[in-house]
Amino acid sequence: MQPKQKKVEDSHTIMTELIMPNDTNPLGNLMGGNLMRWMDIAGGICAAKHSEAHVVTASVDHVSFEKPIKLGNVISIDAKVTRAFNTSLEVYIEVMVSDITGANTMKSNHAYMTFVALDKDSKRPCKIPELLPITTEQKRLHEGATRRRELRLILSGRLKPKDATDLRSFFGELE
Amino acid sequence: MQPKQKKVEDSHTIMTELIMPNDTNPLGNLMGGNLMRWMDIAGGICAAKHSEAHVVTASVDHVSFEKPIKLGNVISIDAKVTRAFNTSLEVYIEVMVSDITGANTMKSNHAYMTFVALDKDSKRPCKIPELLPITTEQKRLHEGATRRRELRLILSGRLKPKDATDLRSFFGELE
Amino acid sequence: MQPKQKKVEDSHTIMTELIMPNDTNPLGNLMGGNLMRWMDIAGGICAAKHSEAHVVTASVDHVSFEKPIKLGNVISIDAKVTRAFNTSLEVYIEVMVSDITGANTMKSNHAYMTFVALDKDSKRPCKIPELLPITTEQKRLHEGATRRRELRLILSGRLKPKDATDLRSFFGELE
Amino acid sequence: MQPKQKKVEDSHTIMTELIMPNDTNPLGNLMGGNLMRWMDIAGGICAAKHSEAHVVTASVDHVSFEKPIKLGNVISIDAKVTRAFNTSLEVYIEVMVSDITGANTMKSNHAYMTFVALDKDSKRPCKIPELLPITTEQKRLHEGATRRRELRLILSGRLKPKDATDLRSFFGELE
Amino acid sequence: MQPKQKKVEDSHTIMTELIMPNDTNPLGNLMGGNLMRWMDIAGGICAAKHSEAHVVTASVDHVSFEKPIKLGNVISIDAKVTRAFNTSLEVYIEVMVSDITGANTMKSNHAYMTFVALDKDSKRPCKIPELLPITTEQKRLHEGATRRRELRLILSGRLKPKDATDLRSFFGELE
Amino acid sequence: MQPKQKKVEDSHTIMTELIMPNDTNPLGNLMGGNLMRWMDIAGGICAAKHSEAHVVTASVDHVSFEKPIKLGNVISIDAKVTRAFNTSLEVYIEVMVSDITGANTMKSNHAYMTFVALDKDSKRPCKIPELLPITTEQKRLHEGATRRRELRLILSGRLKPKDATDLRSFFGELE
Repeated sequence: MQPKQKKVEDSHTIMTELIMPNDTNPLGNLMGGNLMRWMDIAGGICAAKHSEAHVVTASVDHVSFEKPIKLGNVISIDAKVTRAFNTSLEVYIEVMVSDITGANTMKSNHAYMTFVALDKDSKRPCKIPELLPITTEQKRLHEGATRRRELRLILSGRLKPKDATDLRSFFGELE
Repeated sequence: MQPKQKKVEDSHTIMTELIMPNDTNPLGNLMGGNLMRWMDIAGGICAAKHSEAHVVTASVDHVSFEKPIKLGNVISIDAKVTRAFNTSLEVYIEVMVSDITGANTMKSNHAYMTFVALDKDSKRPCKIPELLPITTEQKRLHEGATRRRELRLILSGRLKPKDATDLRSFFGELE
Repeated sequence: MQPKQKKVEDSHTIMTELIMPNDTNPLGNLMGGNLMRWMDIAGGICAAKHSEAHVVTASVDHVSFEKPIKLGNVISIDAKVTRAFNTSLEVYIEVMVSDITGANTMKSNHAYMTFVALDKDSKRPCKIPELLPITTEQKRLHEGATRRRELRLILSGRLKPKDATDLRSFFGELE
Repeated sequence: MQPKQKKVEDSHTIMTELIMPNDTNPLGNLMGGNLMRWMDIAGGICAAKHSEAHVVTASVDHVSFEKPIKLGNVISIDAKVTRAFNTSLEVYIEVMVSDITGANTMKSNHAYMTFVALDKDSKRPCKIPELLPITTEQKRLHEGATRRRELRLILSGRLKPKDATDLRSFFGELE
Repeated sequence: MQPKQKKVEDSHTIMTELIMPNDTNPLGNLMGGNLMRWMDIAGGICAAKHSEAHVVTASVDHVSFEKPIKLGNVISIDAKVTRAFNTSLEVYIEVMVSDITGANTMKSNHAYMTFVALDKDSKRPCKIPELLPITTEQKRLHEGATRRRELRLILSGRLKPKDATDLRSFFGELE
Repeated sequence: MQPKQKKVEDSHTIMTELIMPNDTNPLGNLMGGNLMRWMDIAGGICAAKHSEAHVVTASVDHVSFEKPIKLGNVISIDAKVTRAFNTSLEVYIEVMVSDITGANTMKSNHAYMTFVALDKDSKRPCKIPELLPITTEQKRLHEGATRRRELRLILSGRLKPKDATDLRSFFGELE
């Protein structure tokens, strides 16, 4: 029997938010932690929709904050599943920012987050439908997911660097 | 000289929200006022983007709440400009609701809101680009906007019923 | 047997709020959606008290926002039942605004909202005590409630304009 | 020349609030600190209205919390000026609680708070209109204000117990 | 059998908060009520830890607010048990304030709060471990707790001034 | 001239929070994004204190969420500077969780965050005092900071893996 397969578009989630006074720090910029909070919600909604189950956040990869986001700016958070593993999945979250007038639109930052799907009754991790990448971009993200997963396992001490086959070949490649 | 024209898609805004404990009433349902608050933010972002200016809410038409939205549900608020008048514009806001797993998706409700665009410096109403409807649905909403505007003017005491040409022909039509 | 009757004063509800930074938009004005949220809470408390039951918001009629309300202003929301129907009731909500010093008090706006009373156990609509209007103003609001109800039913597609007897005679009257 | 005098009713403030999930502690009761926050806002609005100036909280007297207030209860906070001193004033704040249906209404607690009025430009304490007590209750609260003020000064180390004439005669009286 | 004894350090609680826009009044200062809300949370966590039980706030003694705390300031709330009575305990809460850069650190204010411990199952007051004061400062606060308790009982009308032995000897002493 | 040096203790920041209803997801667990928001605030306060300047979040390293944190739990967030670079610094943030009674205390998770200090007037990055590690643990964290920085630069595409001297020797070492 074929396992169930779902497309990226089936769970694609868009969240738009207006930066309010309480989201900002004393300099009038969006606090990084508030952005991470929204990214987590958008990512979680996307992951739950793909998994058809409740999910919990398992990890957030490295996030950089480069340009300040100002009070009154509008951010658009775009969350897409990149790959489903057995009971967890990776979501790519991209944040665009613009003036409320729509001017000065640019990418603010992005993150890869992983979520674990939980069975409704037992609250234990449950099987997730496979992700079927279609476009070139979706395939690129799908492929990179294995490498990012190895790095996560190394960073949390559950994989020895020498066993990170995918990551090592990637590092070698870049050199 | 041709006035500037913009399409519906140029300012189409999607806001996704997860219903949190504090959004609910003591029965565990989303409070109507909280939904209106989100519809106002989504509508305002959409209106500001079309107008390329800051906007203020001018009015909300009749809103009905039919099916209860529960804690943990996900709502998707979809805001689209239907017509731009001289310095104000009408936005159609539709709310879809589903379980967090994506199941049981259905329309929750909708509203027509109007916003006024304000000039950055004078804070006075300013000229708005025209809306160019393209699809049949967009044309239908564009046409109905004149009728809804007449009703608004009557309800706020600024138009006499007998002068509501568009509305009267519509009422006549239905009879 | 006489049905239970209650007076307007029995459920009259006053809510006073100070406009805080997070209630405002980037122009420093109270966002319309936040005002609607408070009006819904005040109206709901009033409706629950009259009904002696939990209530859910059924609809909000046309609301206009005319003068901007500023950060640091104080608003006073006054909610009164105008008429009880079988299992639903209409509440008239009026908003006054002033400086925190009490100066510049004026009416900001108003709305008619309807609520449905729910039985504690079955969560199904339940019978509501009648509203007994006493003053001239209360009687005027009580009478108009039938007309506003017809308009609501037309706007939500549940009544044909030609069957709106009360509304038609009112429109005829005005002409 | 006579100093300006204002009545209690001129600044009487009523604030009604519905207890929401986030206002409660893990036992489902309103947290004492949240109630104090609302009492401070209601008291501050009342004080600003009497003073016709911005005010800052100077002190809160002893507050007791006796009966638990539950999620979904409605509280009504009633704030009245009891006495105006030179640049500060005392406000009596009483909290009533009831079910949302209006049943089981009872007094929850009360507090005396003091506020200082600030001049708009200099931000320094400014002169406050006198309070003219009319009813027996208003006169009783007005008179007790001097005694409570002495206790406050003792508690903050700014008055020696032996100089608290009013308080001492009151203690003597009670014995 | 010896009753259980715990030290001040066993439940010492430190809470650090950054003053955000929504915590401030229209003058840009932290509202007194918000500070009391945080003091209640910090005090409650401290009291629960000492009691090894859920607690509810029973009372807050006189609190003064002297110097304004500004938007962007950092406050550090320090909560320590001073004495455990039978089923209630007193917590001393001290607030320090500084610029976010750490400059201008000074004491803002303090309060004594009392909490009652509740049994997990019956939700009725339950026995609390004794507090064992060790340092001179801890012993001074421990001793004063009896006196403050008498004052609380007088203020809430549950003790006649003439029976406040500890308080009377203290007042006499000061004279 | 010697550059200014500060110790870890000079900016050590402790933030204690009680998990409230609105901090949790529909399963009753603290949402990962809310935890990240608090970690960012605690880290930012710590960084500002060491830098004696305002700071902005530059990056968050990989964060894992292992055990669920429940409604009513208490978390203690501990933030310490590990190393100051030229105009940025790394903060190590550790989260402990326990029942409100103090029972079941355990480590929840940790993160390394980097912040950039900004000059008060120019809002441009400014020089930060050096961090002087004293204990063995502080020295271990101080040393590892260079390696984590290289990984960050690789992950954000600003360093080629082959130039990551410190990281490479570390990977080699582990193999």
